[in-house]
Amino acid sequence: MQLRSFLKSAGMGAVGAASAASVLPAPAIAQSNPEIKWRFTSSFPKSLDTLYGGAEVMAKLCAELTDGKFQLRTFAAGEIVPGLQVFDAVSNGTVEMGQTAAYYYFGKDPVMAFDTGLPFGLNTREHASWIYGSGAFQIFREFYAEHNITNFVFGTTNAQMGGWYRKEIKSVEDLKGLKFRVGGFAGQILIRLGVVPQQIAGGDIYPALEKGTIDAAEWVGPYDDEKLGFNKVAPFYYYPGWWEGSSYGALFVNTKSFNELPKHYQNVIEIGSRYVTDWMRCKYDHENPQALRRLVAGGTQLRPFPRAVLEACYHEAQKVYDETSTKSAWFKRIYDHFKPYRDDQHTWMRVAEHTYDRFIFDMSARRS
Amino acid sequence: MQLRSFLKSAGMGAVGAASAASVLPAPAIAQSNPEIKWRFTSSFPKSLDTLYGGAEVMAKLCAELTDGKFQLRTFAAGEIVPGLQVFDAVSNGTVEMGQTAAYYYFGKDPVMAFDTGLPFGLNTREHASWIYGSGAFQIFREFYAEHNITNFVFGTTNAQMGGWYRKEIKSVEDLKGLKFRVGGFAGQILIRLGVVPQQIAGGDIYPALEKGTIDAAEWVGPYDDEKLGFNKVAPFYYYPGWWEGSSYGALFVNTKSFNELPKHYQNVIEIGSRYVTDWMRCKYDHENPQALRRLVAGGTQLRPFPRAVLEACYHEAQKVYDETSTKSAWFKRIYDHFKPYRDDQHTWMRVAEHTYDRFIFDMSARRS
Repeated sequence: MQLRSFLKSAGMGAVGAASAASVLPAPAIAQSNPEIKWRFTSSFPKSLDTLYGGAEVMAKLCAELTDGKFQLRTFAAGEIVPGLQVFDAVSNGTVEMGQTAAYYYFGKDPVMAFDTGLPFGLNTREHASWIYGSGAFQIFREFYAEHNITNFVFGTTNAQMGGWYRKEIKSVEDLKGLKFRVGGFAGQILIRLGVVPQQIAGGDIYPALEKGTIDAAEWVGPYDDEKLGFNKVAPFYYYPGWWEGSSYGALFVNTKSFNELPKHYQNVIEIGSRYVTDWMRCKYDHENPQALRRLVAGGTQLRPFPRAVLEACYHEAQKVYDETSTKSAWFKRIYDHFKPYRDDQHTWMRVAEHTYDRFIFDMSARRS
Repeated sequence: MQLRSFLKSAGMGAVGAASAASVLPAPAIAQSNPEIKWRFTSSFPKSLDTLYGGAEVMAKLCAELTDGKFQLRTFAAGEIVPGLQVFDAVSNGTVEMGQTAAYYYFGKDPVMAFDTGLPFGLNTREHASWIYGSGAFQIFREFYAEHNITNFVFGTTNAQMGGWYRKEIKSVEDLKGLKFRVGGFAGQILIRLGVVPQQIAGGDIYPALEKGTIDAAEWVGPYDDEKLGFNKVAPFYYYPGWWEGSSYGALFVNTKSFNELPKHYQNVIEIGSRYVTDWMRCKYDHENPQALRRLVAGGTQLRPFPRAVLEACYHEAQKVYDETSTKSAWFKRIYDHFKPYRDDQHTWMRVAEHTYDRFIFDMSARRS
């Protein structure tokens, strides 16, 4: 395991005088915690208390690890930067820091989809060990460096659900003509099977689904989906969301701003982003079971995607990745790096982890 | 999700003058990072670079988040405190901080097994959300407070393997008379099925297994087991290690020492312990697949425990827990709290996560 980390390189030397980035003048003696204020914009609205909540936890943490001196002021999507322009705002220095999902910028380079998580890719734990352990993170660092961004992993939704459907999906045929709110690689894969992908912002999904303008919509999972009320207008809730078997958020920091920080403030960002990732994973794992129970009690009908549907999507996905590899050098580099790692991970996870899970889940189902 | 956390209560107020615990006298102006040196003892030897490595990461992190001022000096098992006396050493203030596994102190109160992870209990992610999200952590805090200890979660081995066997286990009958190096609750469960549990320290297992003094031994998983060389003296490697479907480490801090720290140093410990937990989970997930591949290439024969064996052990486990609940009020309190949470977790995890995993693992197996 390479601790891909400033912990590795920073050593334990004291930072001398106050950094040039300090807002306050240095006092007569060395000041180890200079006062620094940053603007921290998010792609998410405040109502999503787990996604946006991650930004708030980060701000609190940066203050509390620096005796109140490193202050991040958080802004929800649209307050100072539109939700889908976080990448540009950080890259050009409009803000020092931004929270987003890298796959929103898929159009800049498809490699950014990998940073969030590939359809039929690694699960939540596998993705984390790939990023931190395999050297994948360094490749992303190189990519973002070209855009004046220093990147960090920032939270995860874990495996998502497959969305809400007005009618059942019983076969691959049923995908034909389906107007489905879904984006990114999943849309590209599904279009090959006849789906008509729709790009609709979060707040507009409910009325579209209610009126029948669309036939289905995917969002995140039970906890977030329940908030948007999809259960009231679509009875069938499918799983798994194979396009987001894990889905990781991103923290983008303007590289010039980052380099001006005292070393131990840089460490606070690195440690803090990893803390938030852990916090968010746990929060979703804690909230989703309760939300699922409420949804099912309220009449939601859970449905697994038919095996034939999963397999058809899987095979189209592989073709999309092969084609994308011919178009993006960054995508090819990370995809080639990813494949053997994925296979090793799956081989191991099938053994102790999956066998354990299968047994305890089975015994639990017998009790209920 | 309750962020069981000093983040919640600490607020952002500045810590005034240097703490009373500061080793150096306060200078003329307020010193936000006082110099503090602690002794940090471990239950593990330095050779276990993932378990003991967690203590080293923690020491580095505490220094680097405080501009080098909060210094933990790490000691391996036996250097200043015997490996299995960490609890007492922290409790009575011999050292300020210790790394250990709570279930080693099972004899003091069986509730401590829960802190590590119960046989047939929660998996790695479920245990984390239970601890941080459900209020379980607060109950452990109350328990440890009686012993002058402020506790933190500190690392995880993830699902362990079921150990190394000189002969195959084909039925429940094969457990009878089996001399098996295993401890804690697993030993109590297995003894009811005829196993003769053996308590043997890590370094002594290999010769015992080689000579046939014991028939089988469990340790951790591929990465750590390979280091001890068990594959050379026992051909069959069983899974899953149902007694440690997840296995979490503990960080114990002497409460008086903790209370004397500046608030933001307390935060560093909390954030740091969670960082180490994440780091260790990732490191094991990264190392185990490669170690498993090497072991299998070297002739190790993987075997799943027969379903009948798992079920027999599972049923005995439930009886042991019911009996233990009548003997320990702490155990009963946490077990009653645990059961409905476990059931909700399993219900949810079976849906998106497990279905996703099953599919991607299956497709991966077809490729290989």
